[in-house]
Formats: sequence, C-alpha cells, structure tokens
Amino acid sequence: MQKISSIDEIRSIRKSLPEPVGFVPTMGYLHAGHLMLVKKARQECASVFTSIFVNPTQFGPQEDLAKYPRDLERDFAALEHKGVDVVWTPDNAMMYPEGYDTWVNVESISRSLEGEIRPGHFRGVATVVTKLFHVVQPDKAYFGQKDAQQAWIIKKMVKDLNFNIEIHIEPTVREADGLAMSSRNVYLNSEERSVAPRIYEGMQRALRSFNHDEVNADRLIQIVANHLGETPFFTVQYIRIVHPESFEPVSTAFDGCLLLVAAKLGDTRLIDNIILTKK
Amino acid sequence: MQKISSIDEIRSIRKSLPEPVGFVPTMGYLHAGHLMLVKKARQECASVFTSIFVNPTQFGPQEDLAKYPRDLERDFAALEHKGVDVVWTPDNAMMYPEGYDTWVNVESISRSLEGEIRPGHFRGVATVVTKLFHVVQPDKAYFGQKDAQQAWIIKKMVKDLNFNIEIHIEPTVREADGLAMSSRNVYLNSEERSVAPRIYEGMQRALRSFNHDEVNADRLIQIVANHLGETPFFTVQYIRIVHPESFEPVSTAFDGCLLLVAAKLGDTRLIDNIILTKK
Repeated sequence: MQKISSIDEIRSIRKSLPEPVGFVPTMGYLHAGHLMLVKKARQECASVFTSIFVNPTQFGPQEDLAKYPRDLERDFAALEHKGVDVVWTPDNAMMYPEGYDTWVNVESISRSLEGEIRPGHFRGVATVVTKLFHVVQPDKAYFGQKDAQQAWIIKKMVKDLNFNIEIHIEPTVREADGLAMSSRNVYLNSEERSVAPRIYEGMQRALRSFNHDEVNADRLIQIVANHLGETPFFTVQYIRIVHPESFEPVSTAFDGCLLLVAAKLGDTRLIDNIILTKK
Repeated sequence: MQKISSIDEIRSIRKSLPEPVGFVPTMGYLHAGHLMLVKKARQECASVFTSIFVNPTQFGPQEDLAKYPRDLERDFAALEHKGVDVVWTPDNAMMYPEGYDTWVNVESISRSLEGEIRPGHFRGVATVVTKLFHVVQPDKAYFGQKDAQQAWIIKKMVKDLNFNIEIHIEPTVREADGLAMSSRNVYLNSEERSVAPRIYEGMQRALRSFNHDEVNADRLIQIVANHLGETPFFTVQYIRIVHPESFEPVSTAFDGCLLLVAAKLGDTRLIDNIILTKK
C-alpha cells in the first residue's frame, strides 16, 4: 500500500493503476463502517484509493475540529490489511492554500436538517469531495448510509455537475447493541455509551409500528421521541421522516422513506437513520 | 467534424480521441476571436473539442439571453474549416434539468467589476464551465483575454478545485479599427459602431501616458474617461486599473497591471481591457 501526501504523486500513480478505480474518502479514525466501504470497493474495482483528511471547512467554528480523533498508524494498518492500493493524506495547506476562494454548494438540500444545525457544513463537504474527485479521478466512490443527507447531496452534486463517477451508498454498520459506528462515539462516557443504542431501538420501534400499518409520520416520530425521552440524557435536535429522493418531510410514511434522528448525548452529537421498509 | 448533442456520446467519443485534448467552450455566433482560440488548440493538441451553448445561468433577468445572436450553421462551417474534431451542442434541458441545484462559485472575485454589475453572472460561468469540463475532460482549455475577469476566475477555479487542466488565455482579437471582437457587436447601430473604437483608443492613450511615466491610476483612468466623454454616446460603468493576480484595484500602475473598461453604447454593453506594458 502506497502512502502519499503530494497531489502530483497521486495524479501520477493514478495513471498507472488498473481501472476501474474505487475511492473511499474518509476523515480517518476508521471503524468497521469505513472498512466495509473499503471491502466493497475492493470487491468491485481493480484499484482502491482511500483518503484520510479531516476537512476543516465542514466544521463550524464551535464544532469539534480540534479534538476530532486521529490515529493515522492504526488507520494505515487497517487499510493495508483490507488490500487498499493507495492512501492519500493531503494536508490543510495543500487543500486550502492562502486565498482559497472556490466553493461548491448543493443549495436547497444543504439548508435543511443537518445543514440547518450546521450552517456551511455541506458546502464544505461538497467542495472537498469535488477536490478529492478531481485529483483521484475515481470510477466509483463509496459512502455510508449513516450520513444519509451527505450521501444524498454527493449523489445530487455528481448528477448536477456531470461527474463521470458512480456513487455507491452502503448500509450502516452497527455495534452489537445497535449503535451506528461513528468516529465520534469515542467522545461518549460510559453512561452515555450505555444509553446511546436507544436511538436505534427507538427507530426499530417506529419501524415495527410502521409494519403494523401506522403510517402517520407524527405518530411514528413520537414513538422515537418517547423512547429517547425515557432517559434524561438525550437532547433531540430533530426526528424527521423524509422522502428518500428529495429529503422533503412527508406526513404519511411509505415503503422506502427515511427516518432520520439527530440528538445530543451530553456534548456529543449523534445522527442515525433507517429506511422504513415494509416486511 | 462530429456534431454531437448527447452527453453520453461526447463521453464515448472522448475515450477514442488522441490526447492531449484541447477544448474551446463558446456561446456560438463565432468571430475571429473564437477562431483564434480554436487555431491555438489545433496547434497545441492532438484533438480539438468545442462546445456551443448559450448558458442561461450566466444571464441576469434583465439581460440579453433571448436576443443573444445565434447562427449554428455558420458556426459549424467555421469550426469545420479550422479542423475541429468535435463540436458539442448541449441544450438547456440536459444541462439544467428540473430540480437542478448545484453551483460553483469563486466567491470574492465574483463580487467585483463585472460581478457587481451582473450579480450571479460568474456563478453561472463557473458552474457551466465545471459541467463542460467534467463531460469533455480536456487536457487544455482556451479562453480569450477580452473577458479578463472571466478568464481569471476560471484559472482560479481550476487551481482551487484541483482540476487537472491547463488554462490558456489568448490575446484579444480586434477589428481593424481596434474594437474588440465580440458576438454582441452585432447589436450596435452604425452610429454606435463608428464611435465604439474609442474604448480601445482611450486605453491606448492611457498606455502611451503610462509609457511616459504616468503611473497614477486615477490620472490614467481619467485619460480614458475623457476620450469616451468627447462623444455623448458612452455611459461608462467602470474604468479600473487592477492587479493581474488579484483583480484588486491599484493606485499606482505597474508593468503588467490591467486596465479594464466597461461602458454602454446605447443598450449594448461593451467590455475591453489591455495589459499596461512598459515598452
């Protein structure tokens, strides 16, 4: 596995690698969710690129950029083990040199849900993903369903801007107790960690109710809210049921719509979602 | 020469053509300035792509989108004569399908000069050029110095977003009397056309003064303003001397800085510029 920082070297290596090229962009501190994306890319592509870059422009001024967890050596070992060909580790100075001024924005969808709570977040995501795509020039790129709105925005951006890249969205990987894998789970203290699975439990309760023919979105949302409200730990930011193609809220749930949750547990924001599927 | 509308066909042809691929994006109604760009591309590249697309998103609501001049058959003949390999003619529906939502913006520079007079103009330019680049995937792309700020913005966008494309800026082509070639010159009536060369004359006067050691930007600007003011036809929008790397106004002219003029002649906006060069 080649570990490269320089953009020019990545471009040069890219030319010599067999296609199709699969790409898994990450912010590092890799967990089983990232590694599942890498595994998919390895199965479906002749070459696998990954990147590790904690992108500063997708963090708000009050957010956790400085303390975002990092462990590059452990990440390298995990990627090597999964058969990755190239890992690119750009730095802030090469990605955002002084005078940096160009931004990509998927405007409407970036204002709701995560975008409402984290203004500028998706502009930072769309911009850095564009830059990563331009350097790596992948044929396929892999993202996790756990960040559903991000995945949707990247698909929309790729379609709107005519990128010639297939976007693959892979299912959320969970801990044994249902908590969605996230690099930020490391922020949870033991008490918070013990109640964190309630997000998934609450969504599963809503799903069961949906499968018993409850389609009223408000009542399904209330099921999740009640389950989180049984402990004093959660501050709910939103619980929403949205159309999977527009991310617009729906009042009546249907097969394939998305149930999205964002809540704070102490200082830690957690987001999760499931697809409401008819059994 | 292949005349193609479909994006998929362009992608497919692109794969089979020898590299480097040169690209000249245009809005059609081609003049000698466009054809000079094509000639350069032909000299420097193994394959030459052009596009003809009157991009609606770079026109303001009160601007001349509907009456922008078009003559596709004449354009095809001229491009064929110059040895172009492929001309791509996308339409609005394929470039901006319903629900289109993604925009590229070089933020700071897009607010001044042309951007101040034409809000949203450069956002439309940066977005459409990104889309064209993603489909054609050129190695080199050619733009005219006449639209100096546009050329600068595209260079900045390419650098910021890590496009792997060389941007070539070619000198302005002029009529015998000095008027810069522009598709919009066709809007001028005969009286307006006869005074239009005053823009270039005024700039040349300023250049002569600069070469006689006048470096005060205000006084150089006044020379141009006086020359335009000698007739009642011009409404000056701006006359500015700017740094060629930042487009920031300078108070003292120096070798290589830009003198920019925008003025209306009747209903027609004309822009032009020269580089102030020490003889």
